[in-house]
Amino acid sequence: MNSTDIQLDIEKVETSRIDQVDFSNLQFGKQYADHMMYCDYIDGEWQTPKIVPYGPMEFEPSAKVFHYGQAVFEGMKAFKDDDGQIWLFRPEQNFERINKSSKRMAIPEFPKEHFFASLQALLKLDQDWVKKGQGNSLYIRPFVIATENGVSASESDRYRFMIIGCPAQAYYNKPIKVIFAQDYSRAADGGVGFAKAAGNYGAQFYPTKLAKEKGLDQIIWTDASSHEYLEEAGTMNIFFRIGDKLLTAPTNDRILDGVTRKSIIQLAKDNDVEVIVDKVSVKYIVEAARKGELKEIFGAGTAATVVRVEGFEYDGEYFDLPAIDKPYGTFFKSSLQDIQYNRVEDPHGWTVKAF
Amino acid sequence: MNSTDIQLDIEKVETSRIDQVDFSNLQFGKQYADHMMYCDYIDGEWQTPKIVPYGPMEFEPSAKVFHYGQAVFEGMKAFKDDDGQIWLFRPEQNFERINKSSKRMAIPEFPKEHFFASLQALLKLDQDWVKKGQGNSLYIRPFVIATENGVSASESDRYRFMIIGCPAQAYYNKPIKVIFAQDYSRAADGGVGFAKAAGNYGAQFYPTKLAKEKGLDQIIWTDASSHEYLEEAGTMNIFFRIGDKLLTAPTNDRILDGVTRKSIIQLAKDNDVEVIVDKVSVKYIVEAARKGELKEIFGAGTAATVVRVEGFEYDGEYFDLPAIDKPYGTFFKSSLQDIQYNRVEDPHGWTVKAF
Ligand SMILES: Cc1ncc(COP(=O)(O)O)c(C=O)c1O
Ligand SMILES: Cc1ncc(COP(=O)(O)O)c(C=O)c1O
Repeated sequence: MNSTDIQLDIEKVETSRIDQVDFSNLQFGKQYADHMMYCDYIDGEWQTPKIVPYGPMEFEPSAKVFHYGQAVFEGMKAFKDDDGQIWLFRPEQNFERINKSSKRMAIPEFPKEHFFASLQALLKLDQDWVKKGQGNSLYIRPFVIATENGVSASESDRYRFMIIGCPAQAYYNKPIKVIFAQDYSRAADGGVGFAKAAGNYGAQFYPTKLAKEKGLDQIIWTDASSHEYLEEAGTMNIFFRIGDKLLTAPTNDRILDGVTRKSIIQLAKDNDVEVIVDKVSVKYIVEAARKGELKEIFGAGTAATVVRVEGFEYDGEYFDLPAIDKPYGTFFKSSLQDIQYNRVEDPHGWTVKAF
Repeated sequence: MNSTDIQLDIEKVETSRIDQVDFSNLQFGKQYADHMMYCDYIDGEWQTPKIVPYGPMEFEPSAKVFHYGQAVFEGMKAFKDDDGQIWLFRPEQNFERINKSSKRMAIPEFPKEHFFASLQALLKLDQDWVKKGQGNSLYIRPFVIATENGVSASESDRYRFMIIGCPAQAYYNKPIKVIFAQDYSRAADGGVGFAKAAGNYGAQFYPTKLAKEKGLDQIIWTDASSHEYLEEAGTMNIFFRIGDKLLTAPTNDRILDGVTRKSIIQLAKDNDVEVIVDKVSVKYIVEAARKGELKEIFGAGTAATVVRVEGFEYDGEYFDLPAIDKPYGTFFKSSLQDIQYNRVEDPHGWTVKAF
């Protein structure tokens, strides 16, 4: 990353908590690196970013984030290569996306220099939290919350931008079963589905819980108006392989424009795999499954990288997707990881040295 | 309210802050009564509700409410009659609705006894914060937030239920101008629009800001699929008067089932005003406006009670709704307030003594 002249206030931990963490047995999102960044927006300006020991903070119960969900977040990862160098994967994408999300949520955009200077300083301080080895990473969670105290439903005049980090292993270690949504939906046309707005996620918990009670792991959301087109999963974009072609839904105002998705589309091009970015009709996928033409479904997202879908339920029927030889999913996952861990050339300049 | 045997832990303020508040000059939602209630859900159980001085609380930055908007709220009011008795208006409705909202957001329901015992105790302690006089009230904000620390997108295993109170005067003191939504939307079919889910509100701030920049105060949302039917405003249900008939949209999974709305429907029946609860087509309303048959539009909600809409914009055109003689809006507002302030008989048993 560009080194910058941005001033940061840094308060280091006295003793690291790292020895208390069992890195071979991590629960996703449950352990936090020693430091965190916060930066307040007050009187129309982002103040000096502060890096402090990770820990609790005080909020008034009337803070708008608690009442109106005016909050957005990002998810990105830092990887350590065999030489101990730390890399970020397409961090500009996350930076741009958090501001896109913020805009839709009436949150002021965050300055680029603040973002990258903080990230760099945090990763330098917490570099030991990024472990070498396949599947290991530091999951980085930038987020913004509305901190004005006031229970009236209008945008906040104060915000807090924060970055926290969680050491992570692979997110899903086994294939998942999904259900195609027929009743519930995730996002409306003209809504906030394309943004990583906090409320999009909480709204999925109940339908997902119902799916889990049926033995399914995730929902693949369909368009809210007709439920005829497959869009994305709760935290992943979705690819379908029909014969030798890959199919994925186009982004629109209901779908998150995923970094993993766009990277896979590029890798597919690089490897002469045809990718069709077009509406994915449920009917078409179900028929392809019946005819044996549906070879694979996989999800793509930062947390999971790539995860195989081993079957789906639709309209009360379960469709099995047996493992195949040389699946695209595995190929894209390892291609991505090779780049992320700096094991191969990076022709698109996706990886960025953390410091 | 029924007195109950629920145990509450109560810590009173040493000195009330009430003398610092200018009750003739209140900004909605900006001043807080001396006490607040909180009750934690831990290990599958709601713990003993605690009443403590209003003030900041500690949260970890990884608390799920900050990331996933897993939060719901309610809005209700306490009124003081001329004899100094405090009344709540249909509080059971709010209690039932917060649990309905919670259910959709995968939040455990809150026990009825906890809710009413806390409310009663709070109102007793903070009774001086409820001022006599038309338009004055204590706005009561129950809410629930996800407090588990963890940045993985699944429902929390800890929650905090809270109640805070804000002294309030009339919310809107003048008529408003609205715009009928044509691009943005508030809620999807199969989504969480019917719930008072935090994220529903934050998602409206940006489109509402755009409307305000055009000199309009609020948006009347239309169905997300076609934008052909008028549904509700950001914090109010909407009534249209065509000739002598009232028209309002039916509730569905996109619309909040408002207490004020249902009370007005009942009052209309009581007063032989015909109310048609049916889809409200934009086209029909625009035509009625052109023909001079659209006599009134008004919004109905706890915060605002009833507020007159003096004009609307649709498709770039502004339609003026001049004030009329004996508007329904004013009649329903004063009928409601007469009941709320215990000035008339309450045939439906809507008002409930606070303690
Ligand atoms: C709704 C949704 N879709 C897709 C994704 C995948 O996006 P990315 O690959 O940028 O992580 C995510 C996760 O970020 C998400 O939250
Ligand atoms: C979206 C929405 N619609 C309508 C209302 C009006 O409901 P009530 O009359 O119960 O306050 C509210 C406010 O509570 C609301 O938030």
